[in-house]
Amino acid sequence: MSSLNALKPNIGVFTDPQHNLWIDQASPSVEEIKKGDALQEGEVIVQIRSTGICGSDVHFWHAGRIGPMIVEDKHILGHESAGEIIAVHPSVTNLKPGDRVAVEPNIPCHTCAPCLTGRYNGCENVLFRSTPPVPGLLRRYITHPGVWCHKIPETMSFEDGALLEPLSVALAAVERANVRLGDVTLICGAGPIGLVTLLCAKAAGAEPIVITDIDQGRLDFAKKLVADQPGTVKTFLVGRGKTEEELGAAIVSEFGGLEPDVALECTGVESSIASAIHAVRFGGTVFVVGVGKNEMKFPFMRLSTREVDLKFQYRYANTWPKAIRLVNSGVLAGVRKLVTHRFDIQEAIKAFETSADLKSGAIKVQITSD
Amino acid sequence: MSSLNALKPNIGVFTDPQHNLWIDQASPSVEEIKKGDALQEGEVIVQIRSTGICGSDVHFWHAGRIGPMIVEDKHILGHESAGEIIAVHPSVTNLKPGDRVAVEPNIPCHTCAPCLTGRYNGCENVLFRSTPPVPGLLRRYITHPGVWCHKIPETMSFEDGALLEPLSVALAAVERANVRLGDVTLICGAGPIGLVTLLCAKAAGAEPIVITDIDQGRLDFAKKLVADQPGTVKTFLVGRGKTEEELGAAIVSEFGGLEPDVALECTGVESSIASAIHAVRFGGTVFVVGVGKNEMKFPFMRLSTREVDLKFQYRYANTWPKAIRLVNSGVLAGVRKLVTHRFDIQEAIKAFETSADLKSGAIKVQITSD
Amino acid sequence: MSSLNALKPNIGVFTDPQHNLWIDQASPSVEEIKKGDALQEGEVIVQIRSTGICGSDVHFWHAGRIGPMIVEDKHILGHESAGEIIAVHPSVTNLKPGDRVAVEPNIPCHTCAPCLTGRYNGCENVLFRSTPPVPGLLRRYITHPGVWCHKIPETMSFEDGALLEPLSVALAAVERANVRLGDVTLICGAGPIGLVTLLCAKAAGAEPIVITDIDQGRLDFAKKLVADQPGTVKTFLVGRGKTEEELGAAIVSEFGGLEPDVALECTGVESSIASAIHAVRFGGTVFVVGVGKNEMKFPFMRLSTREVDLKFQYRYANTWPKAIRLVNSGVLAGVRKLVTHRFDIQEAIKAFETSADLKSGAIKVQITSD
Amino acid sequence: MSSLNALKPNIGVFTDPQHNLWIDQASPSVEEIKKGDALQEGEVIVQIRSTGICGSDVHFWHAGRIGPMIVEDKHILGHESAGEIIAVHPSVTNLKPGDRVAVEPNIPCHTCAPCLTGRYNGCENVLFRSTPPVPGLLRRYITHPGVWCHKIPETMSFEDGALLEPLSVALAAVERANVRLGDVTLICGAGPIGLVTLLCAKAAGAEPIVITDIDQGRLDFAKKLVADQPGTVKTFLVGRGKTEEELGAAIVSEFGGLEPDVALECTGVESSIASAIHAVRFGGTVFVVGVGKNEMKFPFMRLSTREVDLKFQYRYANTWPKAIRLVNSGVLAGVRKLVTHRFDIQEAIKAFETSADLKSGAIKVQITSD
Repeated sequence: MSSLNALKPNIGVFTDPQHNLWIDQASPSVEEIKKGDALQEGEVIVQIRSTGICGSDVHFWHAGRIGPMIVEDKHILGHESAGEIIAVHPSVTNLKPGDRVAVEPNIPCHTCAPCLTGRYNGCENVLFRSTPPVPGLLRRYITHPGVWCHKIPETMSFEDGALLEPLSVALAAVERANVRLGDVTLICGAGPIGLVTLLCAKAAGAEPIVITDIDQGRLDFAKKLVADQPGTVKTFLVGRGKTEEELGAAIVSEFGGLEPDVALECTGVESSIASAIHAVRFGGTVFVVGVGKNEMKFPFMRLSTREVDLKFQYRYANTWPKAIRLVNSGVLAGVRKLVTHRFDIQEAIKAFETSADLKSGAIKVQITSD
Repeated sequence: MSSLNALKPNIGVFTDPQHNLWIDQASPSVEEIKKGDALQEGEVIVQIRSTGICGSDVHFWHAGRIGPMIVEDKHILGHESAGEIIAVHPSVTNLKPGDRVAVEPNIPCHTCAPCLTGRYNGCENVLFRSTPPVPGLLRRYITHPGVWCHKIPETMSFEDGALLEPLSVALAAVERANVRLGDVTLICGAGPIGLVTLLCAKAAGAEPIVITDIDQGRLDFAKKLVADQPGTVKTFLVGRGKTEEELGAAIVSEFGGLEPDVALECTGVESSIASAIHAVRFGGTVFVVGVGKNEMKFPFMRLSTREVDLKFQYRYANTWPKAIRLVNSGVLAGVRKLVTHRFDIQEAIKAFETSADLKSGAIKVQITSD
Repeated sequence: MSSLNALKPNIGVFTDPQHNLWIDQASPSVEEIKKGDALQEGEVIVQIRSTGICGSDVHFWHAGRIGPMIVEDKHILGHESAGEIIAVHPSVTNLKPGDRVAVEPNIPCHTCAPCLTGRYNGCENVLFRSTPPVPGLLRRYITHPGVWCHKIPETMSFEDGALLEPLSVALAAVERANVRLGDVTLICGAGPIGLVTLLCAKAAGAEPIVITDIDQGRLDFAKKLVADQPGTVKTFLVGRGKTEEELGAAIVSEFGGLEPDVALECTGVESSIASAIHAVRFGGTVFVVGVGKNEMKFPFMRLSTREVDLKFQYRYANTWPKAIRLVNSGVLAGVRKLVTHRFDIQEAIKAFETSADLKSGAIKVQITSD
Repeated sequence: MSSLNALKPNIGVFTDPQHNLWIDQASPSVEEIKKGDALQEGEVIVQIRSTGICGSDVHFWHAGRIGPMIVEDKHILGHESAGEIIAVHPSVTNLKPGDRVAVEPNIPCHTCAPCLTGRYNGCENVLFRSTPPVPGLLRRYITHPGVWCHKIPETMSFEDGALLEPLSVALAAVERANVRLGDVTLICGAGPIGLVTLLCAKAAGAEPIVITDIDQGRLDFAKKLVADQPGTVKTFLVGRGKTEEELGAAIVSEFGGLEPDVALECTGVESSIASAIHAVRFGGTVFVVGVGKNEMKFPFMRLSTREVDLKFQYRYANTWPKAIRLVNSGVLAGVRKLVTHRFDIQEAIKAFETSADLKSGAIKVQITSD
């Protein structure tokens, strides 16, 4: 457990509208932490130990925006973090210094209609860490409401804890897409979200599974990721020169003629979504996890005459306790294999470059801080 | 009750790939009916008394196809019918000559996966009356499986019985869209399906309702249709020159600032669907009843960041018994106001012309036969 | 709008473990109100104008307990109230003095699992007004979190506002029991909750409805309550000397042979629940709204071989905004007919005696305060 | 593949109202089979190769009845069977002699309301093999509708095929109980149905699981059954002398303080069901798979104040295709470990005695026929 006396200067990883990426001093300062001024009612201070880099972090750096969310000032990145509690406001009774926690990076209002109906990911007043202008978690020390810091057991590493955020997206998707034991399941895309979705779909009993990608290397990684588990996972390389309808039919062939009950779409690419719409059975679901272009063209009459449900995931709600159970028990131990690179926070620039480099072979890059 | 001795020659209303529309002899012939040859196991013969003209009938006549369904030969139209049983196969025990019935115009296989899971509208082997090449019901006499002929009570007219088919589409939509008591509900389109959907949504307790159209006359008709019922129905005239996002916002204003829980989209028009997507609340549903272009462009990021469910209705399943209850009891008595024109089958051409003429003021045109 | 200068002494209606019922001074005092000391962050002061007496209020007075909830000290009753805001804490921005509000009588914690999943009626730390030891609302002035005070429009009276609480129970039941347009619906019991449930089921499109009771007078009241609405409501007088199985069959006969899709059980009486279990169709639902004995005997094999779902309602969540819409728009205007007696708060003892007297003909007794 | 020339005399395993159990000649006779007289439209003849003994078979033998289902004449037992097609009616096109099939032992009518809504297990006119007076499958040769004979691949044995029936009960239960990835899950009872339910819950991602029984040997078997799978399965020995409330609390302790989301009750014993009701969380589900006494006492107020859903499984619908996928792929390979004893049909009496003898250590006894 860290002593307040041994704190290093607080630093964070920043970007700005000019697409710079640098390390700089961040709040709260060590002085503020020591004086206790940094904490408001219900808050704790977490020494961040591991933080994963998300595609959206890279996107904010490179593109300066994601849809309506725009980097308009210097801005701290990062929202996949775990660490250790080093101070708590007196009002906090369920956490204490030394507790190891994974940080759920949202601060919803608790009283709007989405919050009161259990869908706080749609909170009308949410503050989401790393979505401008709310500063992210890629710092040595952060303040956060205690209620959104979830204790992890000794048997889980901080690295595991930082994986719970991308895992939460997949868990929410698999739950809301209603993937069930024995469901014929298509997963489009074998990037980080596709892979963690594959693990979740498999753990939920999907059978058989076909996973698609345009890159054979990723498909090989996917295959290896689940090689030790019983059941059927086939890969489908999406080639060029086929219509979406033909791709849909080819996917069904890969399933041995079974039309999938559900497609978990993790690419956000128009043609991939359309192929999935053509593949699923009458009454099936195409569930889109990825983000993409502002507008997209879909095969409307296919959707209509086949009663295909088209649904979407935005962040997550109420997934952390479940995610901790599943990783710690080993049911989702496979997520650990997704971390391919690790860098100290002082090497954060290199970490981001690795994450952004398609040739690096990186799946999930994590930044650590001792 | 008709005596078999008093039968008139069987005639039907035909179209063909050359867009002709004419009346001609149809099977089964009176001789076949009298000999009893026309009936197979489980079948009955119905003397059709009232048949509504559907937009799809006009479309098959004018355009020769709807998506993959193509008129390739001479083809009998019509699938909204009610009549009287005049003969039954010996295997039929629940119907007898003289029974008054509404015809559910599908013949599913009962054994494919959609059939066995209660969604026989998705039957892989369905025969649907009036969808080429299956001949329609616009005849004096038809054969049909007894199980798809639903008895109607004396208190319902054949005109009422023929309304159960379009009503079934709306009932299925309102049920699958999960419209509930107190749900803020948008209805896009005040054509025949929009109007019957309005009646169903109102009967299901939707409150408040806004109904949109590009035609003020239809909106006035909608307003009058529900004038005798408590609760809020507002109309919204869709003007030109606004973006879909602005239309979405204007609709929310019409609701007094409430974002609709559900939109029942009855136009099948791209811009109308997009406006509905912009209007509904986080986690809301846009439920598309209409058919339209093969491909359409949707506001993808709005769907994604708001977790809007996009769902579709294709025909109906298990709606007839419910529809009979609701019309006969008066809960949906309003549907009767939708029949604006009636023609004898010998005037069928005039009936179709009236139905196809936007200036006729026709909502639902029915063809009768004594 | 009340001026703070014109406040009357605050009084409340108390009971105690000795089953006394009296009026006494209550907090906050007028002095506290004027000084502003009474308000904590997020709170408002409401001048209560109308409060309904619930069966549970009478039960706390007469029996001193309901299950595990025990009157152990002097205790203020009442949880069905509406009134006017007379002061707000500076942190409250959506309410101001003069606003007319209905009080949702719960104070959940917002952060336990039930709260975060949208079921705050199951909050592990809830304070519920009038459930010992939390003092009730039967006072002239109360403090309450602003978030649980719902604005009502000028077109609704305080009497209407106080009806929203019992209405909320029925709305929650009809929603969770999944009563849908055209559902064959049984309502057991024609007491206050049975009657308001009848109104809600009717507004949700249930058709046909049979309502049962052991008292013909109540059934006549039920019949009159919905006499101006289209659709079918039949009454069934539960006589003696029949088995539960026979009663189930007799109810099905009353439906003309239709087995109900859903039974809304509003008596909490063992034999009534068992009869409902015998009446519903395969796969139907018996939804219990009432409370009753600690243990009950159910026809297990009937539940099992018919896959009957047995479900229960405890209080409500997220019903107030919907309830306000439905009453104000007139969709549920019928609830107003349930208020049969009104007394000033200074006559509260008489009000309770009337409410408790089966011969008084009282359905809902309200206590007013100017 | 069997040649029709090599058929042995058809025999079957019979019981009667006097609780006799014997082997005797059964229909169809070899002569009927050869002449082809035995087949009606849609039917096939199956040479049964493996049949499991169900607790209900033993019960019909020993007790002569299960609830309303009474053995009133000589009666063939058995409904868990797989075998080989040896003849098909000309109308059957999807099966041919030599095909290996698992028999779904029901013959629903396809046209009643439960059938048309996808719940054919509730068919109003169902014939269920081995439920009196419908003869069971424990014969060398049987006729059955082809649509209810599901092809199994070469990679599955007939023994596997005969396991699909008990597996179907568990699959239906896990699906309708809505067991999801990460759900805290209680399984009551470690008999054959409890064990197969354990495998299904595990495959659906339940985590953690506690399984209860009154017999430590069964719990040990359960533990071993899932020993090779990641995740948490704890056992809880139900002792005597505790109230149902105390047992509920002790179960929660076994979960480390987590209240289960769902309990899958596989004993049908009153006190076990009551304990499960006490254990589950607010809004949780107690899902009863077992059958039991005609009437049972439940903790009503606990159900009510905790909004516990009480649901039931009766047979199954639409599970076979899924069951075949899951066993063949290895996801549910564990079911194979449940077959502890095998006997030739000529030793059927011994097979039944073993199955009925609690000391035999038998989980699933199968009867084979070559």
